[in-house]
Amino acid sequence: MNDQALKQLIKNISLKKVSAQDAFEQIKKLSFLDLGFAKLDSHRALRKGFPEVIYAKGKTTKQLKHIVASAIEQWHSLILTKVSLSVYRQLKKEYPQLKFSPAAKVVYYNKRKPKQKKGCVTVVTAGTSDLPVAEEAVIILEVMGNKVRRLYDVGVAGIHRVINKRRLLVDSRAIIVIAGMEGALASVVGGLVDKPVIAVPTSVGYGANFKGIAPLLTMLNCCAPGVTVVNINNGFGAAYFANMIN
Amino acid sequence: MNDQALKQLIKNISLKKVSAQDAFEQIKKLSFLDLGFAKLDSHRALRKGFPEVIYAKGKTTKQLKHIVASAIEQWHSLILTKVSLSVYRQLKKEYPQLKFSPAAKVVYYNKRKPKQKKGCVTVVTAGTSDLPVAEEAVIILEVMGNKVRRLYDVGVAGIHRVINKRRLLVDSRAIIVIAGMEGALASVVGGLVDKPVIAVPTSVGYGANFKGIAPLLTMLNCCAPGVTVVNINNGFGAAYFANMIN
Amino acid sequence: MNDQALKQLIKNISLKKVSAQDAFEQIKKLSFLDLGFAKLDSHRALRKGFPEVIYAKGKTTKQLKHIVASAIEQWHSLILTKVSLSVYRQLKKEYPQLKFSPAAKVVYYNKRKPKQKKGCVTVVTAGTSDLPVAEEAVIILEVMGNKVRRLYDVGVAGIHRVINKRRLLVDSRAIIVIAGMEGALASVVGGLVDKPVIAVPTSVGYGANFKGIAPLLTMLNCCAPGVTVVNINNGFGAAYFANMIN
Amino acid sequence: MNDQALKQLIKNISLKKVSAQDAFEQIKKLSFLDLGFAKLDSHRALRKGFPEVIYAKGKTTKQLKHIVASAIEQWHSLILTKVSLSVYRQLKKEYPQLKFSPAAKVVYYNKRKPKQKKGCVTVVTAGTSDLPVAEEAVIILEVMGNKVRRLYDVGVAGIHRVINKRRLLVDSRAIIVIAGMEGALASVVGGLVDKPVIAVPTSVGYGANFKGIAPLLTMLNCCAPGVTVVNINNGFGAAYFANMIN
Amino acid sequence: MNDQALKQLIKNISLKKVSAQDAFEQIKKLSFLDLGFAKLDSHRALRKGFPEVIYAKGKTTKQLKHIVASAIEQWHSLILTKVSLSVYRQLKKEYPQLKFSPAAKVVYYNKRKPKQKKGCVTVVTAGTSDLPVAEEAVIILEVMGNKVRRLYDVGVAGIHRVINKRRLLVDSRAIIVIAGMEGALASVVGGLVDKPVIAVPTSVGYGANFKGIAPLLTMLNCCAPGVTVVNINNGFGAAYFANMIN
Amino acid sequence: MNDQALKQLIKNISLKKVSAQDAFEQIKKLSFLDLGFAKLDSHRALRKGFPEVIYAKGKTTKQLKHIVASAIEQWHSLILTKVSLSVYRQLKKEYPQLKFSPAAKVVYYNKRKPKQKKGCVTVVTAGTSDLPVAEEAVIILEVMGNKVRRLYDVGVAGIHRVINKRRLLVDSRAIIVIAGMEGALASVVGGLVDKPVIAVPTSVGYGANFKGIAPLLTMLNCCAPGVTVVNINNGFGAAYFANMIN
Amino acid sequence: MNDQALKQLIKNISLKKVSAQDAFEQIKKLSFLDLGFAKLDSHRALRKGFPEVIYAKGKTTKQLKHIVASAIEQWHSLILTKVSLSVYRQLKKEYPQLKFSPAAKVVYYNKRKPKQKKGCVTVVTAGTSDLPVAEEAVIILEVMGNKVRRLYDVGVAGIHRVINKRRLLVDSRAIIVIAGMEGALASVVGGLVDKPVIAVPTSVGYGANFKGIAPLLTMLNCCAPGVTVVNINNGFGAAYFANMIN
Amino acid sequence: MNDQALKQLIKNISLKKVSAQDAFEQIKKLSFLDLGFAKLDSHRALRKGFPEVIYAKGKTTKQLKHIVASAIEQWHSLILTKVSLSVYRQLKKEYPQLKFSPAAKVVYYNKRKPKQKKGCVTVVTAGTSDLPVAEEAVIILEVMGNKVRRLYDVGVAGIHRVINKRRLLVDSRAIIVIAGMEGALASVVGGLVDKPVIAVPTSVGYGANFKGIAPLLTMLNCCAPGVTVVNINNGFGAAYFANMIN
Repeated sequence: MNDQALKQLIKNISLKKVSAQDAFEQIKKLSFLDLGFAKLDSHRALRKGFPEVIYAKGKTTKQLKHIVASAIEQWHSLILTKVSLSVYRQLKKEYPQLKFSPAAKVVYYNKRKPKQKKGCVTVVTAGTSDLPVAEEAVIILEVMGNKVRRLYDVGVAGIHRVINKRRLLVDSRAIIVIAGMEGALASVVGGLVDKPVIAVPTSVGYGANFKGIAPLLTMLNCCAPGVTVVNINNGFGAAYFANMIN
Repeated sequence: MNDQALKQLIKNISLKKVSAQDAFEQIKKLSFLDLGFAKLDSHRALRKGFPEVIYAKGKTTKQLKHIVASAIEQWHSLILTKVSLSVYRQLKKEYPQLKFSPAAKVVYYNKRKPKQKKGCVTVVTAGTSDLPVAEEAVIILEVMGNKVRRLYDVGVAGIHRVINKRRLLVDSRAIIVIAGMEGALASVVGGLVDKPVIAVPTSVGYGANFKGIAPLLTMLNCCAPGVTVVNINNGFGAAYFANMIN
Repeated sequence: MNDQALKQLIKNISLKKVSAQDAFEQIKKLSFLDLGFAKLDSHRALRKGFPEVIYAKGKTTKQLKHIVASAIEQWHSLILTKVSLSVYRQLKKEYPQLKFSPAAKVVYYNKRKPKQKKGCVTVVTAGTSDLPVAEEAVIILEVMGNKVRRLYDVGVAGIHRVINKRRLLVDSRAIIVIAGMEGALASVVGGLVDKPVIAVPTSVGYGANFKGIAPLLTMLNCCAPGVTVVNINNGFGAAYFANMIN
Repeated sequence: MNDQALKQLIKNISLKKVSAQDAFEQIKKLSFLDLGFAKLDSHRALRKGFPEVIYAKGKTTKQLKHIVASAIEQWHSLILTKVSLSVYRQLKKEYPQLKFSPAAKVVYYNKRKPKQKKGCVTVVTAGTSDLPVAEEAVIILEVMGNKVRRLYDVGVAGIHRVINKRRLLVDSRAIIVIAGMEGALASVVGGLVDKPVIAVPTSVGYGANFKGIAPLLTMLNCCAPGVTVVNINNGFGAAYFANMIN
Repeated sequence: MNDQALKQLIKNISLKKVSAQDAFEQIKKLSFLDLGFAKLDSHRALRKGFPEVIYAKGKTTKQLKHIVASAIEQWHSLILTKVSLSVYRQLKKEYPQLKFSPAAKVVYYNKRKPKQKKGCVTVVTAGTSDLPVAEEAVIILEVMGNKVRRLYDVGVAGIHRVINKRRLLVDSRAIIVIAGMEGALASVVGGLVDKPVIAVPTSVGYGANFKGIAPLLTMLNCCAPGVTVVNINNGFGAAYFANMIN
Repeated sequence: MNDQALKQLIKNISLKKVSAQDAFEQIKKLSFLDLGFAKLDSHRALRKGFPEVIYAKGKTTKQLKHIVASAIEQWHSLILTKVSLSVYRQLKKEYPQLKFSPAAKVVYYNKRKPKQKKGCVTVVTAGTSDLPVAEEAVIILEVMGNKVRRLYDVGVAGIHRVINKRRLLVDSRAIIVIAGMEGALASVVGGLVDKPVIAVPTSVGYGANFKGIAPLLTMLNCCAPGVTVVNINNGFGAAYFANMIN
Repeated sequence: MNDQALKQLIKNISLKKVSAQDAFEQIKKLSFLDLGFAKLDSHRALRKGFPEVIYAKGKTTKQLKHIVASAIEQWHSLILTKVSLSVYRQLKKEYPQLKFSPAAKVVYYNKRKPKQKKGCVTVVTAGTSDLPVAEEAVIILEVMGNKVRRLYDVGVAGIHRVINKRRLLVDSRAIIVIAGMEGALASVVGGLVDKPVIAVPTSVGYGANFKGIAPLLTMLNCCAPGVTVVNINNGFGAAYFANMIN
Repeated sequence: MNDQALKQLIKNISLKKVSAQDAFEQIKKLSFLDLGFAKLDSHRALRKGFPEVIYAKGKTTKQLKHIVASAIEQWHSLILTKVSLSVYRQLKKEYPQLKFSPAAKVVYYNKRKPKQKKGCVTVVTAGTSDLPVAEEAVIILEVMGNKVRRLYDVGVAGIHRVINKRRLLVDSRAIIVIAGMEGALASVVGGLVDKPVIAVPTSVGYGANFKGIAPLLTMLNCCAPGVTVVNINNGFGAAYFANMIN
């Protein structure tokens, strides 16, 4: 029941077109949803310029086509993460407006250009193997209208590389640090600049890396303040949060 | 070597009061620090209005007195976390300007009133046992000049409690969610509002809680976007990050 | 806004004592709570005969007194778990109607006798060290009106002990199996009878018991069907669930 | 030795057709089994209407055919879990009476329609990826004669979805909550309704989900009472337990 | 019902002093126990010369006195493990026949001297800190009638020490190896001699020892054959098993 | 230097055919090996009737052929574990005397029939999936000359199955219990009989089984005495140890 | 800005060809890099005789070709670790100067013969399965100019094998011990000789080996002093460190 | 049997003072020890200038006095680690030559001044709480004759602090990096200089630090080469290893 319907109901009560009992029951039946609370889902994208983001892994191509169809009809933008090239090609045949970032394995679509934000988000990686997670973050930030700068392959094994880019980091509204192995880069960046750092551990590494547990613990225990952490390999989560801040 | 000294050196070169070789060597000796890079530490508080925050646990009262003495001399503000009442009393005798929050176990001191920020940070807890971590976050936020609202004891066992406060959450610039047990509150808050949520797992619980591992994992795996995580019981870290955003 | 108030509002609309706009706003303001949804908390005890159960550990005596005062005023029954004898004595002074089970460390209070249920719940323990958890379950079951049978100290080291009591187990509506060490008793009971078994791992044991992880895993992997698990040492949770079934 | 045989033996003793020594030895040889205790296995299905449930994974098609042959001969019903489509097709050729649920990967067979139970079990999932586990639970519940309602894809990222279905949950005899990621849905459902909740963690997720450990811990630490837990992905176990309650 | 009673019953059937129906019911009621199966408990000590072993930790002095009283009445021997000196003194007052090994924290009592076994069990420790676990094993072995040789403080940091004692190890029926830290001694002993080695990890160590997990894993992965493992610090378990072999 | 050579040297000293200095040096050079200590390897099989056991996994067919060639030349018996059928066929071509157990994936060869031992070892499994580990134990026991009895598929979900076989267990010199899932069978067998039980956890199971960790912990924490544990899936280790006892 | 440029600038200041303000700004802009600090990367190989070492796993052949091209142009040597034979063949076609160690899966290239070091590094392995990690260490040591001795397959299951080689170990400047299973070999070697031991746990093993965690913990807890540890399977890291010592 | 005795024996053989048989037997009895192999223990200190190092924790004062007495008699130096002040005072009374470092909790004693080594070892710590572990390393290094430089409190939260000291690090023969929290300092130091880095994780930290596991994993996964790791808090082990290198 939207506002119009509720106003009409009140009018009808006042006009005695509806009995007190009926009115009582209709109002009691007002679901949580009707009170404008749960319209969140469809409203969100419109009000905020946030695209819907769908985790494609584990969904069939058929299911994805269904989602794309709905999105094109109802939403102004859409992001599918973790999409293989072959799946993209199948989607593309039916929905030629879809775009694809092979490095990020992200399919996206924007009905209109997102409003550009002023601040800049810098995406920093320790090594080249962290690139897929980083590109996922980059593409999501860009689709959401953020200026993004890449600062790749500046891991602490050659500490001067990141230090020399300090100026660039200082000029960011938020910094996403993506690192596998031991994940020390988040601490170093957090120690260099007073900007919000969102740390993304990756599963890059071997042995006692334990598929990302080592950098996850490193980042959680980071002794430089101003660092928060998202799940292992969660480039999307970091990008979404950085966009909120920006 | 500060700017004045460098300018003087250049003048002296130009006036030939210093030989080319001496000048070369002096400039080469310019440490990293001299180039204005590492002045960060002492400058930080001044430029940003950030107080220094000291983790008092494991430091002797003597060491803490030394820190307080330096702080009162050099900095405009100071926060000591995890301070017992008895230690506070010893510090208070010599430094009567110190204040204490017994709930947060935080000693603080502000030479001048911090500049008030416009946005509001809401601190949400699941249960009463999460209160010490929450109060640590609150006092740090307040000393840094943030408006803070407390929303305590709204854990998911009575889910309506937090839902009824949705309006309050929506009106926040950032939300800190503090929860032990299974930590599901962060997911619920993240699912209710589109605001940056900083989740703090606490070691409140027993058995398979594993001193905070259970809520930590819950929060890292949070399927609502817009949620990042800090270390277990790290009220300070969440407050510092929320202040950066605000 | 309760039903009466809502009916009055509708009447007033119909009588035009309230303007359409005012009516619209009043109804829109109807909180989630007003719709009878969140009255759950205070209603629960009344409708269901469930006492409120409070985890006393980590709460001050002052806080507990406050809770007891509210309970006696508003609720018909109350259970405080994990209460030490000395705390009980302090509560008892002011609230002589409180009762105490020293074995279970449970304080309880029942304004009126709970309605007795027909079925019986059997509480089974592997060893004498599991007794505190077991007694917590027993007292909570009894306060909720369940017939309870104790079958203690029948661990698998002497497998015949539990087998000889199979009849007793078969005659139960639900069985709570409480075991530390390796926790194999839950599997044995689940293999003996076709009744719902709620398994409670305890932290009784040493070494590779890991404070209850060993029996927890045993119980989760139980190859006999009809066994579910609650948290380590969570006698209350098992009792609450068994009461729901009964 | 069944009752008839034992009665005959007693008669023979009384008729002195058997010597005291022979009688003594025959009775002493009465195995555990002969006393009607261990007939459990074959009797269980008959008395309880419970089908035999076989975990097919890791068994050869030949072994499964053997099991199906026995089942059709001796039992009135059978469920095979985790069966691939190709294996089903091979079984189907020889046993055309078998049915298959591809979503649940369950093969089942019922000689006669199971007696329908009055109560209803609701199966709730957080996301679409939890569907195979959910469908396993649904098919097993249905084969056992339960009315089942599905409430899928109501994870806490959109908390209003599950809240709007509260009525449906309240009307259930038991609720099975199936969730991966962080598993917070069990806490939310447990906080919404006073019904027995059986929580099934799934291995859906990535990174710090650790193949289901994260939701497992969340569910074990659930601060809402009335929630018990079964093994990761154990849809069958939850269904079996829910059927016991219903 | 013992054999005599059963023979009498058969006689009575044959004499028609008992009706067929009564006889049928009496035999049907024959519990598991009556068939001589579960007399295990009280018979065990008598037949095998095994004393009852009670884990005293977590039991009150009152409970222990009760156990001692029963033991002295019914059993020919008793071992209480993990008993403090002060508890022993209280037990000793009432039961002066009890003996105590302070190093092993074991109270024991033997009505008659145990039958001496021929073989010898060697108890080997890596360091002096493993002594309490070793002495627990030694005293239990001795009370059970085994010849025991101690070979202490021969950890692999000085590998020649254990190698020089190879002869002594070869002459054992079974070897108990007790080691904390990294637990490598079990591998070395297992590589030196072809005798059954029972490895006991201890919680001696620090850091990545994780309270005995490190030596536990070392021992489980032992690449020398002929090594089995018991729980961390479980000197009793190793002794009991070694006695079985001897 | 063998005994003969040493005797000759002494003779030569006495005959002054060798100088004191040369003699001193020759004796000093006597390696550890020469003293008959390390001849262990080649002697072991001869003296003890133990075949060499080779873990074939991860070795190339070429390496295995080399090992078989040596074994046939030097040793009287050989066991290769974890051999695939195709590898066996390649070995068989060149060494037709090799035999193969497909269930155990073991290749073996015995120059002469092993001396039969008197005692019997019983191999018990919880489920059919534990069969490969069990058959590995069986074949190794048989090649070493042990009488073996199989007691398969007697897991605790149908507890009467193992109880009915108690007599068989009691008549064993040693019992190997092989179980995955929760591994409770070892506790049950240990509680039924006073015989040495060697428990083998298997990686059979799913979810919180954690590839065998759950039964491993169960078995280590076994509250029935007389149970020791070997590594997950280590059928060979259990057989080797049981043979030592027998 | 290199030294020459800085000297020219000083000259220009002195000659007043540059204004004081310009000079000030140019010097202030001197990056961290310009001060000769971060030239580390390209200088390292030249000054130290260290080849660049590239972890090839996860890099495409195209990326590797690019790296090889740069290396041949700029560096005097190069090592690629974890390279498959087929990738090597592709690289070899274009860069015939590359060499390959199939056992180590290492591609390497040396423009000039490395300067030979005096000391010797001994690489010790427990079993044949540890060979790939060992060969990786050996080839890297050799390319860096170290004399290397192999001491393979001397695991503690036959402890005399390593003891007999003590002399060889004593004559080393550093010892690399590579072991999977339980990793006890590092302790034994550390207990035999007073030389720096670098322990490399490998993922060789099964069950409770947990992909190398067991030997990792063993080595970290090593009670023989003089042992340090690198990551699981990290043959390169151990070789690099041993080379530093030598 | 020392060399003299052996020479005498040979002489006696040659003089026919001993029969061939007796000589044979005496030489055969030559233990491993007699061949000069295991004299390692007492010789070690003399040849190498290494003091004996005793881990005092868990040893009684009486045991420690005994060790000190032996040491003063036989060895030229001694180090006791983890000694409390009160224990030191008791030892001091009887052995006034003992010295104590309260920060390191180390008691030491040197009969003669150790030979000074040329190289310098730098001990680096991240925070003040790592000081006890660092001082343990320092005192042990000094007693062994190493020049030591302290570089304390240079954790990555203020990354410039360690960078400014790069020169000092470059001038070291070995570097010990001691860090708790996330342990990133080892990576930073390893990335700055090409010197052997021995990393010591400490248990300083809270929450997801897990008593030193977080920095341990960080250090094991360190992507800068030239870093090895010792056990958590093992200052002694790092010092001993650094001394070996120096």
